[in-house]
Amino acid sequence: MSINTNNEYWHGFEGGTWQKEIHVRSFIRHNYTPYDGDEAFLEAPTENTCALWDEVLELFRKEREAGGVLDMDTKIISTITSHAPGYIDKDKEKIVGLQTDKPLKRALMPYGGIRMAEKACRDNGYEIDPGIKEFFETHRKTHNAGVFDAYTPEMRACRSSHIITGLPDAYGRGRIIGDYRRVALYGVDRLIEDKKAQKETTRSAMYSEIIRDREELSEQIRALEALKEMALSYGFDISKPARNTKEAVQWLYFGYLAAVKEQNGAAMSLGRTSTFLDIYAERDLKDGTFTEKEIQEIIDHFIMKLRLIKFARTPEYNELFSGDPQWVTESIGGVAVDGRHMVTKMSYRYLHTLINLGPAPEPNLTVLWSLRLPENFKRFCAKLSIETSSIQYENDDLMRFNHGDDYAIACCVSSMKVGKEMQFFGARANLAKCLLYAINGGVDEITGKQVAPEYRPITSEYLDYDDVIKKYDEMMKWLAGVYVNTLNIIHYMHDKYCYEKLQMALHDKKVTRWFATGIAGLSVVADSLSAIKYAKVKVIRNADGLAVDYEVEGDFPKYGNDDDRVDSIAYDIVHRFMEHIRKNHTYRGSIPTTSILTITSNVVYGKNTGSTPDGRKRGEAFAPGANPMHRRDTNGAVASLSSVSKLPFRDAQDGISNTFSIIPGALGKDDRIFVGDIDIDLDCGNGACNTPTLFEGLDTDATE
Amino acid sequence: MSINTNNEYWHGFEGGTWQKEIHVRSFIRHNYTPYDGDEAFLEAPTENTCALWDEVLELFRKEREAGGVLDMDTKIISTITSHAPGYIDKDKEKIVGLQTDKPLKRALMPYGGIRMAEKACRDNGYEIDPGIKEFFETHRKTHNAGVFDAYTPEMRACRSSHIITGLPDAYGRGRIIGDYRRVALYGVDRLIEDKKAQKETTRSAMYSEIIRDREELSEQIRALEALKEMALSYGFDISKPARNTKEAVQWLYFGYLAAVKEQNGAAMSLGRTSTFLDIYAERDLKDGTFTEKEIQEIIDHFIMKLRLIKFARTPEYNELFSGDPQWVTESIGGVAVDGRHMVTKMSYRYLHTLINLGPAPEPNLTVLWSLRLPENFKRFCAKLSIETSSIQYENDDLMRFNHGDDYAIACCVSSMKVGKEMQFFGARANLAKCLLYAINGGVDEITGKQVAPEYRPITSEYLDYDDVIKKYDEMMKWLAGVYVNTLNIIHYMHDKYCYEKLQMALHDKKVTRWFATGIAGLSVVADSLSAIKYAKVKVIRNADGLAVDYEVEGDFPKYGNDDDRVDSIAYDIVHRFMEHIRKNHTYRGSIPTTSILTITSNVVYGKNTGSTPDGRKRGEAFAPGANPMHRRDTNGAVASLSSVSKLPFRDAQDGISNTFSIIPGALGKDDRIFVGDIDIDLDCGNGACNTPTLFEGLDTDATE
Repeated sequence: MSINTNNEYWHGFEGGTWQKEIHVRSFIRHNYTPYDGDEAFLEAPTENTCALWDEVLELFRKEREAGGVLDMDTKIISTITSHAPGYIDKDKEKIVGLQTDKPLKRALMPYGGIRMAEKACRDNGYEIDPGIKEFFETHRKTHNAGVFDAYTPEMRACRSSHIITGLPDAYGRGRIIGDYRRVALYGVDRLIEDKKAQKETTRSAMYSEIIRDREELSEQIRALEALKEMALSYGFDISKPARNTKEAVQWLYFGYLAAVKEQNGAAMSLGRTSTFLDIYAERDLKDGTFTEKEIQEIIDHFIMKLRLIKFARTPEYNELFSGDPQWVTESIGGVAVDGRHMVTKMSYRYLHTLINLGPAPEPNLTVLWSLRLPENFKRFCAKLSIETSSIQYENDDLMRFNHGDDYAIACCVSSMKVGKEMQFFGARANLAKCLLYAINGGVDEITGKQVAPEYRPITSEYLDYDDVIKKYDEMMKWLAGVYVNTLNIIHYMHDKYCYEKLQMALHDKKVTRWFATGIAGLSVVADSLSAIKYAKVKVIRNADGLAVDYEVEGDFPKYGNDDDRVDSIAYDIVHRFMEHIRKNHTYRGSIPTTSILTITSNVVYGKNTGSTPDGRKRGEAFAPGANPMHRRDTNGAVASLSSVSKLPFRDAQDGISNTFSIIPGALGKDDRIFVGDIDIDLDCGNGACNTPTLFEGLDTDATE
Repeated sequence: MSINTNNEYWHGFEGGTWQKEIHVRSFIRHNYTPYDGDEAFLEAPTENTCALWDEVLELFRKEREAGGVLDMDTKIISTITSHAPGYIDKDKEKIVGLQTDKPLKRALMPYGGIRMAEKACRDNGYEIDPGIKEFFETHRKTHNAGVFDAYTPEMRACRSSHIITGLPDAYGRGRIIGDYRRVALYGVDRLIEDKKAQKETTRSAMYSEIIRDREELSEQIRALEALKEMALSYGFDISKPARNTKEAVQWLYFGYLAAVKEQNGAAMSLGRTSTFLDIYAERDLKDGTFTEKEIQEIIDHFIMKLRLIKFARTPEYNELFSGDPQWVTESIGGVAVDGRHMVTKMSYRYLHTLINLGPAPEPNLTVLWSLRLPENFKRFCAKLSIETSSIQYENDDLMRFNHGDDYAIACCVSSMKVGKEMQFFGARANLAKCLLYAINGGVDEITGKQVAPEYRPITSEYLDYDDVIKKYDEMMKWLAGVYVNTLNIIHYMHDKYCYEKLQMALHDKKVTRWFATGIAGLSVVADSLSAIKYAKVKVIRNADGLAVDYEVEGDFPKYGNDDDRVDSIAYDIVHRFMEHIRKNHTYRGSIPTTSILTITSNVVYGKNTGSTPDGRKRGEAFAPGANPMHRRDTNGAVASLSSVSKLPFRDAQDGISNTFSIIPGALGKDDRIFVGDIDIDLDCGNGACNTPTLFEGLDTDATE
C-alpha cells in the first residue's frame, strides 16, 4: 500500500481496502501510530476551554436547582433536522451541535411511546402539546402501543409479576452503535452512494423481509440526507470527508448528534473513536496544522458536548437505572489482532479530559484492558482511576477473540463489532422467582395469581433436590419461551415504529444481530438449590397452600467460595437456561445470547420476589449480576472471584458482571497505586469475571 | 332447529349454527323466505322520502355547479369517530349517518398518501392544513411513501412506461367487503368478544406474521369500539343486535359507514345484504311492527345514503375511471346451494329504489343471475333494466360453483365469500406492450428506453411466429415476475400504513386472500400473433433500429369470429401468463388470480402503446377487457361472444369482461322486453362471457 497523496481529504494517509469500500478498520490498521510514551505530552485546558466549561457547569448547577431538568421541548418532535442550531457560547465552541436549540433542553421523542413522552414531561412540570398527543394517539402509532397490541395475556402477567422485568417496551432499546467515524472518513455523500448500491443488491423476489430491507435502506438514505442538512445548518458541509482533526471530530460528532436527536435509546454509545481520530491528529501535528494544545482543546470541547447529552425520562426510569444514564460509552485502547497495542496519544487525550474538565460519569470512558497494553498507559489509567474514579475497564484479551479489534462496548458490557453488529436488548428474566414458580406450580408467591402454566406444585414438607430440579427445568423452559417471544414482539415493533435509521445507516448492509436476553438472581438460585441438596429445606405454606417461606435446617455450600459443589449448580443453571432460550425462534435471524448483569436493578428484582430456599427473605435484594450473595462469600476475594469465573462465558456472551469493592489491603502490600476506597466496577467487565486475565493484569500493576 | 323465542333480539328467528358462532349464512339459510310473486306489493315513495330526496337532488345540483365537489375537509383527518354526526335533514331521515359532518363534504384521508390527499384538495380548490401535511411528511408515513421506498428501478420503469398500469400505489386498493350484516345480527359487543377470542387462538411462537396478526386483531377490536362510539354519537347503541328492520338497516349501514370513514378504497362494495334484511322485514310485517310502506321508506333512505358516498379524488383518478366511482356494489338474488333461489321481497325493494328515487349508477345494484331465478323476478329485472339502465348482471350459476351462496361482488366483477375472502387488488399488465418488448428486446417502443432485460431483439424483416412466441413467452415470464413483486410491495405497505381495520374486523380470523392480477390488450395480442402466423408481418424500424410499426400483408383470422385458429392463441396467452404469475411468491399466502377486465382504461392503455403487428396504430385504443378489437368481429354477435367464451376461466378467475352493445334486432323477433339502445354492460359479468348460460337466460326472457 502506498501513501495517498492525490486526495485532498486523505492526503498523507496510507491507502488500503478502506479506499475501495466502507471499511474503517482497514483505515485504522494501515494508519494508526501506537504510542508507548507517557502522559508528559498532554496539555492543560485552554483559557477558552475553562471559560466555556464554567458556562456548562453553571448550566448543570441551574439544572440541579430546577430539580433535575432545566428545560423541555413540548412542541417540536425531535428529528435530525427538527431544531435550529443550538450553542452554549458560539464564539468559544470549537465543536458545535446540541440536541435541541438550547443546551440541556430535553427533546420531545414520542415514537417510542406517547404516554411515556407525556409522562416524562408531566413529571418534570411540563405539558406536551395537545395536538401532538392527539396525533400520536390517533394517527401515528408508537413502539409502545404496537407492543401492547401484540402481547399475550401471559406476557402481561409475567411483566406484572416481575418474573420478566425491565423490558424495553416503554423505552428505546438502545445498544446500537452507529459507526460515526464513517462520517469523518468518507463524508456523507459517499455513504449515501454506498447505501444506494446496497439497495440495488437486495434479492429480487419480494418476500416481506426483502421489502422491509429495501424500505429501511430508503429510510437510512433519508437519514443521511438529513444529517447533511443538520450539519449545514451549523455551517458545515459534511458531504465530503473531513480535512483535518477538527473537522474529523466535528463530522464524527454530527453523526452521533443525529443519532441522539433521533433516538432516545437506553444506551446511546459512541463506539471506538479515539485511535481513529489520532490518525488525523498525528498527520496534522506533523503538518503543523494544529498544535497539541489545539488538539486537546478540540477533544475537550467534544467531550464537553458528550457530557451535555440528556434525554427526557420519567422518575421511574431514573430509579430503575439509579440516575439518568445515557451510556455514552467510548472504548479506548485494546490490542490489534496483529499484536500491536492500539493505545495512541488520543487515548491519553480522551482520558485527560477527566483532568481538564474534571471527573464525570459520562461519556463512559472504557479502557479495553489487555496484558499487552503499554506499561506507561497502564500506569496512566491507574493513576487517573485513583484520581477520578471515572474509568471503566473491560477485558480486551477475552473479547478480541470473538470480536476482533474493531469492536466497542454498547452500554456497559455489550461488545459488538462497530458498524457490523448490533444488539436487540432484552433486559432480564428473574430466575429466582422462576424457582419459586417451579415449587408453587406456576402460582406467583406474592400475588397468588397463576402466572405460569398449572404445572404440578411441590406439596411435600421438605424439598427434594431431584424433584425441584426437574420442575425447575420445566419452568425455565416455559419462562425462556415466554421471554423470547415477548422480546420478538418488542423488536418487531421497535423496527416498525421506532427504527434507528441514522444509526443503521452507519452500519454495513449485512448486520449481525445479537438477541440479548439476561438473567437475574443467579446466586439466589444456586444457593437455594445447594441448600435443598446439602441441607434440609422445610416449606412454610400459607392458608392457601402456597409456599411462602422456607426454613433451612443445617448448613450448605454457598456460591462465592470456590466450592464446586455449588459453583457447578450455578454453571448448570446458566447453561440450562441458555439452552432453553436457544430452542425458540428469535426475530430477524438474530443470535441469542444472555448476560448475567444487574448493577442496581437487583434491588428491585429482590423487592418483587418472595422468600427463597436459601434463607433469603421476601423483598430482600438479590446480589447484583453474577455476584455471590452478600456476606456469603466467606473464603476471601479470590475464592469469590473464582466462583464467578467458573460460569460458562459461551452461554452468557453478552456479559457476566461482578460488582466488587476492594479495600487496598486486599491487593497486596504496596498501596502506591490503589489508594483509598476504590470501587472497581466490574459490572462493566464483560467476561472479566470468568477469567483471571484482567486480575492478573491489574495485579501486575498493583504489585510492581 | 327450533324457533328462537327467548332472545329479545332474535325472537321469531329459527336457530342454528349462527347462534353459536358468527355465521350470517347459517342465519340466512335457516330464516329467509324465497319470494316467487311479482312486484305488485311494492310501495311508492312516501312524501317524506320525496321531500328528502329533493333535498339530496338539490345538493347534487349544487355539487355539479361547484365543478364536481361541494365541500372538502382540509383539517380533520377522517377516522371512524373523527366527525360529529351529520344529517341531510334530521327530521326526515329514517336512516342516518354521513361520512363527515355535512352531506357531500369530502373527507380528508391521507393514510394512503399525503401528496395524493393534498392534490385531491388542491385540484378542487382547497388547501390541506399545513400542520397535517408536515406531520404526514415527517412523522406518519403513508402507504404511498412506503411503496416508493421499496420499489426497484425496474418497477418504476415499468410503471413509467405503462407496461404495468393503474397500480393501487397511490390510491386505496379497495375490493374488501366487510360483512356489515354481522353488526345487525350480533351487535358489536359480540363481535368484539369474538375478535378477542380469535386473538387468544393465534399461534404462540412469535414469528413476525403471528405478531402482525395479533396487532391487526387489536386494531380490529379498536375499530369495533370506534364503530360503537360513532353510532352512539348518532344516538344509537349498537352494542347489541338490531331489534327490527329499521335497526337492522341502520346497524348494517353504520358498519358500512365506518368503513368508508376509514378507507378511501377504489371499490367500497356493500356485499349481499338484501336477502339478509328481508328476514327482519318478513318478521316485522308479520308482527305488524312495520308496514310495507314503512319498510320501503327505510330502504329508500338507506339507498339514498349510499348514493351520497363520495371520496376526495384527483382529476387523474376520475379520468382513469371515467367518473368518480365508489363501486358500492350490492349483490342481489342468486340461488342457494340447496337449490332454492334467494330472491326475496327485499330484492325487489332494493331494485325498486331505481323507480322511487330514479336511476343511478350507485349503489351498483347487481343481480346474481341464474336460470333458476323465478320468472317474475327475471321479468321485473328486465323491465327495470329497460327503464333505468342501472342494473348489472352477473352469472351466479358459474360463480356459485366456486364461492357457494354467500359471496358478493366487490367492485364490478370480483367475487368473494362475504367475511371470508378478500382481494389484494392489482390492476393490470399490458400484454400488448409486452409483445412489442419481446420484438424489441425489452426496449420501449415509445420512449426508446431499455425497460425489460436486454433480451435479444428480433432483427429480421418479417416476423417469424415461432421466434416471436418463444421471445414473447420469455418476456411474459419477466413481466409476470416484476408485476407480482410490485404487487407484493404494494400490499405489504398497504397493510403496514393503511390497514383496513374496520373492514377486516367484519371478517373471520382466517381469511382467504386473492392476489388479483389483470391483463390488458388480449385481443391485440391474439390478432397480432394471428397476423404473424397466418399473414406476413413486415417490421418498420426507426433510425435506431427500433421496431415502431408493422405492415400486414394478406389477411388473417381475427379474434371474435369463433375461429379456433386465433381463439386458441388467445386461450394460450391467458394460460401462459397465468402460469408465469403462479411461479412467483405472492404476499401473505394469497392465491394468484387474474382478470381480463378493462372498462374504460383500455383507451389509456392504447394511448401508451406503440403500433402492433395486428395493424393497430400507435396510440389507438385497445378493445376493453376480453373484447374483440372494434369492428373485427364480423361474424355476428354469437360468434363474437363464442370467441370470448373460450377463454379459460380457471386461469382468469377474477373475471373476464366483454363490453357488448346490442341493438334489439340482435336478440330475436320480439322487442317486448329489450327495447331501444340497451347497453348490457357485460364488463360486470364475471365469467359471463365464457359460458353461454347467462345468454341462454337472457334469451329465454327476451324471446319468451
